[in-house]
Order: sequence, then structure tokens, then C-alpha cells
Amino acid sequence: MRIGWVGVGVMGRHMAGHLMAAGHELSVFSRTASKCAPLVEAGARLASSPMDAAYGADAVFTMVGAPSDVEQVTLGGGGVLEALEPGSLLIDCTTSTPSLAQRVAAAAAGKGVLALDAPVSGGDVGAEAASLSIMCGGSDEAMGGSGYLLDLLGSRVLHMGPAGAGQHTKMCNQILAANNMLGVCESLRYASAAGLDADAVVRAVGAGAAGSWAMNNLGHKVVANDFAPGFMIEHMAKDLGIAVSEAERLGLELPGLANARRLYDALLAAGHGRDGTQALVLALDSPTNPAVSPCR
Amino acid sequence: MRIGWVGVGVMGRHMAGHLMAAGHELSVFSRTASKCAPLVEAGARLASSPMDAAYGADAVFTMVGAPSDVEQVTLGGGGVLEALEPGSLLIDCTTSTPSLAQRVAAAAAGKGVLALDAPVSGGDVGAEAASLSIMCGGSDEAMGGSGYLLDLLGSRVLHMGPAGAGQHTKMCNQILAANNMLGVCESLRYASAAGLDADAVVRAVGAGAAGSWAMNNLGHKVVANDFAPGFMIEHMAKDLGIAVSEAERLGLELPGLANARRLYDALLAAGHGRDGTQALVLALDSPTNPAVSPCR
Repeated sequence: MRIGWVGVGVMGRHMAGHLMAAGHELSVFSRTASKCAPLVEAGARLASSPMDAAYGADAVFTMVGAPSDVEQVTLGGGGVLEALEPGSLLIDCTTSTPSLAQRVAAAAAGKGVLALDAPVSGGDVGAEAASLSIMCGGSDEAMGGSGYLLDLLGSRVLHMGPAGAGQHTKMCNQILAANNMLGVCESLRYASAAGLDADAVVRAVGAGAAGSWAMNNLGHKVVANDFAPGFMIEHMAKDLGIAVSEAERLGLELPGLANARRLYDALLAAGHGRDGTQALVLALDSPTNPAVSPCR
Repeated sequence: MRIGWVGVGVMGRHMAGHLMAAGHELSVFSRTASKCAPLVEAGARLASSPMDAAYGADAVFTMVGAPSDVEQVTLGGGGVLEALEPGSLLIDCTTSTPSLAQRVAAAAAGKGVLALDAPVSGGDVGAEAASLSIMCGGSDEAMGGSGYLLDLLGSRVLHMGPAGAGQHTKMCNQILAANNMLGVCESLRYASAAGLDADAVVRAVGAGAAGSWAMNNLGHKVVANDFAPGFMIEHMAKDLGIAVSEAERLGLELPGLANARRLYDALLAAGHGRDGTQALVLALDSPTNPAVSPCR
């Protein structure tokens, strides 16, 4: 297949690589062209715009930053929808808003293009190992056409419903992840304060009914003050902002989400945006910081 | 070995049974004698008091309700320390306070008895399957003497430090578990409100980086409004009360713990004490209830 790929960040570069490794022909675009170098060296064509990446493509993937970026590279001038032909696929793996996913799908349908919102979970590790969970929203036809490609990127590819359902599912994922991470950080702050061997605590509680992926994979990093990113705070803060907006729109009050969002926003404002989400523990180290104590 | 067992609740009955199944001779006491019937039918001796259960015992286990119960059956009149002989073991599997664990250990040491605080994680399922995580605090000698017995009850038996360290570790476990459960309930409330198939969401997010034991084991129960207890809210509320007190004593501010504690206390006050902890989702169904919105 001829595939266009837009956005070569910490995850996109691995995902695009898997498609090439499976024999697909890739045109790749990134705002920072140098990021495309490894893929170009492996045989990809360097595209000059999202639209250019989409010329003649059977499918285009987008994996960019914010919803505004998704809007620009799909619906905007020089965007992929200006080049995609009827019957082709437009698959957005960015975590974005459900409403934008619906708008993109409608615009795509107007051109006979099949759109799928397909945000992922699993971080850079999952992207590299092709073990992502991929949460898809779109028509059965869009899902049917994309499944073969998505299976190259993830170990769980799930059709969650119509356009927007993938993004809604990703919000469920992030609400869960944010609460889990707060639990990890609070638990291990307590452990240290109580004089326990916090690494031993990770092993002790991670294996039981309190266990989580976050504790078992990031707990030791929290203990070691290792904030190297698997998933960056700036991305989590973005995602939680979407989640809070959507929850409000749905009439929901989610206190754990609200806490996590305020703590992550405080860390973002304090310059920790490019640390991993496990740096949330730092927000618990400033009890006098009002951002850390949203209940006061 | 001759073993005394005090407290035959939803977990204790399974745990005591494992010791008998391994060939140990059991004397069992419960405030509600009828609860001992299955063990007595299997050959256990029915004791008339904690002290009676401890006569001639090489080891006594206590698995009761609150710290006040632990204090009564160990340090109180008619308690097990009135009968235990030097060199014997006193193992408290109740989730209790670290400070009481230290007091019990000191009183035990005064009589030459080796004490261990050994709270567990894994719920009734783990108790029945002998797959509990057991978090132990006490001397190396107490740990060495108890390990053989504890291995019959759990798949992970961990020595976390001196007296009280087991209870502190259990607090780490409950802080983690409470945040995780809030994440599960918020995530699935969002899923339903967004019109997703919430069972599909459990499968989608449970397998990835947002996954947790709670989501994978209790998520479907939340979706089905199945509040049958694995672990009851009245016990979680007790544990979180201890955790909040200890955190305050340690100078920690843990906003997720605070949220979970208030929500569980509200559910307890509303009569949900004997529901499983997954009934936390009900607290999110009353956005106008001030107990549900601790931040307002």
C-alpha cells in the first residue's frame, strides 16, 4: 500500500517504521523535517506538506500534537483532505477531541474518504514494540479497511463505535491513568515518609489487588527520581484538559480527574512539561503550593 | 504445630482453613461462635476466648475488625498474650495502626513472644486461593518463625521492616487501591455518559498502560451495578481513616486519598458499608451531594 504519514514524534516514528518494515511505501511529513531522517534513510519519501504526503496514498495516518494540529493537517489549507481520493483512508492516531473527530469524519465523507479516529495507549515502549492498544471510532467500512494496517501497530485494535468513540475511549483511558498515577505517587510518598524501603513497597503492592501498570512499570522510577519520559506531562496535561471539558459537557463531576488535572497543570507551569507523568510526585512535595491543594 | 486463630470473617475463615489443610492443629475463636462451625466440623477446637485459643499454641493468628479489636484480643483481659508462652508467635493479619503494632510487639517482647504485624492484600478471592500478598513488620526472628506458616496463606510474603512496617505497607496499598478505584469509577461513568459500550471500554483500557487490577477485575461489576463485596466499603473506610491519620502525622497532604476517604465515608453514611468498594461509582452519581464534591 501507499501510505502517507504526518507527524514523527516519540511514538509516530516507531509506528511509521512498522508500516515500512511490513513492506508499505511511505511518504512522511513533519514540521521538523530532520525528524524524518531515519525513515527517509530507510526508504521513505520526504513530503513537503501534509497534502503532499497524501497524494496518491491509499491511507494517511496523522499523529500530531494538539487538536488544533489535527485540524490544520486534515481540514486546513495544504491538509491531507485536499489530496486524498475517494475510497482512501484517513486515520488520526492523535489524542484529540471527539467533536473534532466527528467534524473530520464528516468532511472526509464529503470527499468519499473513510475516516477513523484511532488514538492509542501504551507509550513509546508500546509504539516501539507494536503492542499498543488502539481505540477506534468510525464506520464499519473505515474500520474494515484500516484493521490490517492497525494490526501492524498494536496488539489490541478495538472498534469502539462511530466517529468520536475512539477519542471518548481514550479519555476514559486517561482519566483512569491519571488517577492511577496519583495513587502511585501518593502511595510512594507515604512509603518514604514512613521510613519504608519504597522499592520494596512497589514490589509488595504492585502484585496484589492494588496493582496497576503504572505502579509496576513506573513505581521504581518514582522512587529513583527518574523522570525520563515514557509519556510526557505536557501531553497528559493536554489530554486531561480535553477530558475535563468533555466531562463538563456531559454533566459529570469527576473529583479525581480534577485533582490530577490541577496538579499536572501546576507542574507544566513549573517547567516540568517534558518530564514523564511519574513526575507527578513532585507536586506532592510542595504542600504549601496552592496548586497542589485544590481543596483549599 | 498447634495454632490459635482469632477472628473468622470473610477472609479469616479461608486462611484458617489453609492451615488446617496443611495438617496444623487449630483452636479457633470468634465473637460469633457460629462462624466457627465449618472449621470445627473440619476438626478445629472451639475456643471460649482469645486467651483460650492461645493456650499451648506455638503460634496465634489474629484477623479481626478494627484496631480496637486487635488491642482487645491481644493486650486486653482474656487476650492471647495472657496465655502465650515464651518463644511462641503472635501474628496479626488485621489491617490496623502502625503504632498499635509497635505496642503489641513491645508487650509481646516483654513475655518473650515474637510478634509480627502481617496485614494482607488480595481480598476474599486471594484468601480462598492462598494467593494473598502479606506485608510483614517485626524482627528477623519473628519473620523467620512465621514464614513457613504465612507461605500457606499467600503467594507473596514480604518482610518490610520492624514492627509497624507491615501496617505502613498496607496503608501504601490502600492509598493506591483507593485512587485506582476512583479512576475505575470515573472512567466508566464517563464511558456511559459518552454513550460508549462500557464493558468494551473495560477491555480496551484494562490491557494497556492505564490498566489496573481494579479495572480488570471489578470494572465489569461497576458496569453491571454488581456491588457484591470482594472487599467491603466499611473496611475500606476504616483503612482510609487510618491512612489519613498516619499521613497527617507524617506531614503529608495526599489529595487523592482525601477525596477517596470522603467519598467512602459518604457511602458508609448512606448505608453502603457492606457493598463492595466498586460501589464508589454511586458517589459519582450524586453531583449535588456535598460529600461527593469535597472541593466545593
